[in-house]
Amino acid sequence: MSVPAVIPFKPQNPKTRLSKVMDREEREFFAEMMLRDVISALYNAGCDPLILSTQPFCLDDVAVEVSTDGLNDALNGFLESREGPILIIMADLPLATPEAIRALVQTENEMAIVPGRGGGTNAIFLKEGFRFRVNYYEASFLKHIGIAQERGLSYDVIDSFRLHTDVDEESDLVELIIHGTGRSRKYIESLGFALTLTKGRVSVVRSRS
Amino acid sequence: MSVPAVIPFKPQNPKTRLSKVMDREEREFFAEMMLRDVISALYNAGCDPLILSTQPFCLDDVAVEVSTDGLNDALNGFLESREGPILIIMADLPLATPEAIRALVQTENEMAIVPGRGGGTNAIFLKEGFRFRVNYYEASFLKHIGIAQERGLSYDVIDSFRLHTDVDEESDLVELIIHGTGRSRKYIESLGFALTLTKGRVSVVRSRS
Repeated sequence: MSVPAVIPFKPQNPKTRLSKVMDREEREFFAEMMLRDVISALYNAGCDPLILSTQPFCLDDVAVEVSTDGLNDALNGFLESREGPILIIMADLPLATPEAIRALVQTENEMAIVPGRGGGTNAIFLKEGFRFRVNYYEASFLKHIGIAQERGLSYDVIDSFRLHTDVDEESDLVELIIHGTGRSRKYIESLGFALTLTKGRVSVVRSRS
Repeated sequence: MSVPAVIPFKPQNPKTRLSKVMDREEREFFAEMMLRDVISALYNAGCDPLILSTQPFCLDDVAVEVSTDGLNDALNGFLESREGPILIIMADLPLATPEAIRALVQTENEMAIVPGRGGGTNAIFLKEGFRFRVNYYEASFLKHIGIAQERGLSYDVIDSFRLHTDVDEESDLVELIIHGTGRSRKYIESLGFALTLTKGRVSVVRSRS
């Protein structure tokens, strides 16, 4: 049975922390390329993606639901009525691999969670969606662990840097260029981003043609 | 058979990128606590640690070798004569777990490697040390992959955020407070470091008593 995978997505003016190095149109296209990389990994892991978008949006024949409720309310609406398994996964994880997603959805516990950099939550898998409620923003990883404990859910923390690496800032593009294999890496390279060494440390530089 | 694990270590004035938030003595103690966390994980994974120190140093009854040759020359000296397996692992990985180290040393390939944040290399396991030469600094992960390919070694890239997270900068302390379970986390908490929220993002703040 394929696991439904909900991917929250903001098609308009996303990834504003990249504004210094990409204009709005580029950020919108980049966000879509990262979403496509996540969706490819989900299909290859046997999951069934559903985009939960803040605005009308379409992407090939992937199912899209539009909600203007805010991330937590929109996701909790999904969870409330969900008796079977469900995966919630962020759209900015272009290093996601089918192997890492499989480790997540094949947990022996009632829940498996992947922390993001800086205390966020990049993915949550639940065997029974209705038993949980999400609370994103701020240190959501610790909040989610707290909710699992309150609700008596056993959980796994999945140890994967590929799912841990969310791309928000310029320095995260280093990881994408080094470890990426999909469309979003190709896209930023086509924009002129490349690795560079400054004082022995690796960063990215963009050559504008 | 237990795998020898070489841990390069600099006891004097380490972790200078933390100088803004810790004085030299604190940084030296903190580096030692991280080293102890790595050594605990190594023992629990069935490895046999050996500290390769830039200066005379002692830590309980762990073996120490002193070398002033520079990181690459010192490690390559070890590798040259090594016919059996060897693990090289950095001392600033306080989130290391026995499970992640086991995944590394139980690879089916001739080499397994763990990338660090920003293009570095946090650990390399080799089934036959003499077949490889290290080249640390700068984008060493890509260099090490290149060396493996040149030398015809099959390799695995281990997907672990716990081994991927090297602690160099203030922002890395967030990860240690959220995910750490060992001595180095306790130590920074005893110094007054704690999580704080600034504009919805998690960082650390130090309250000096």
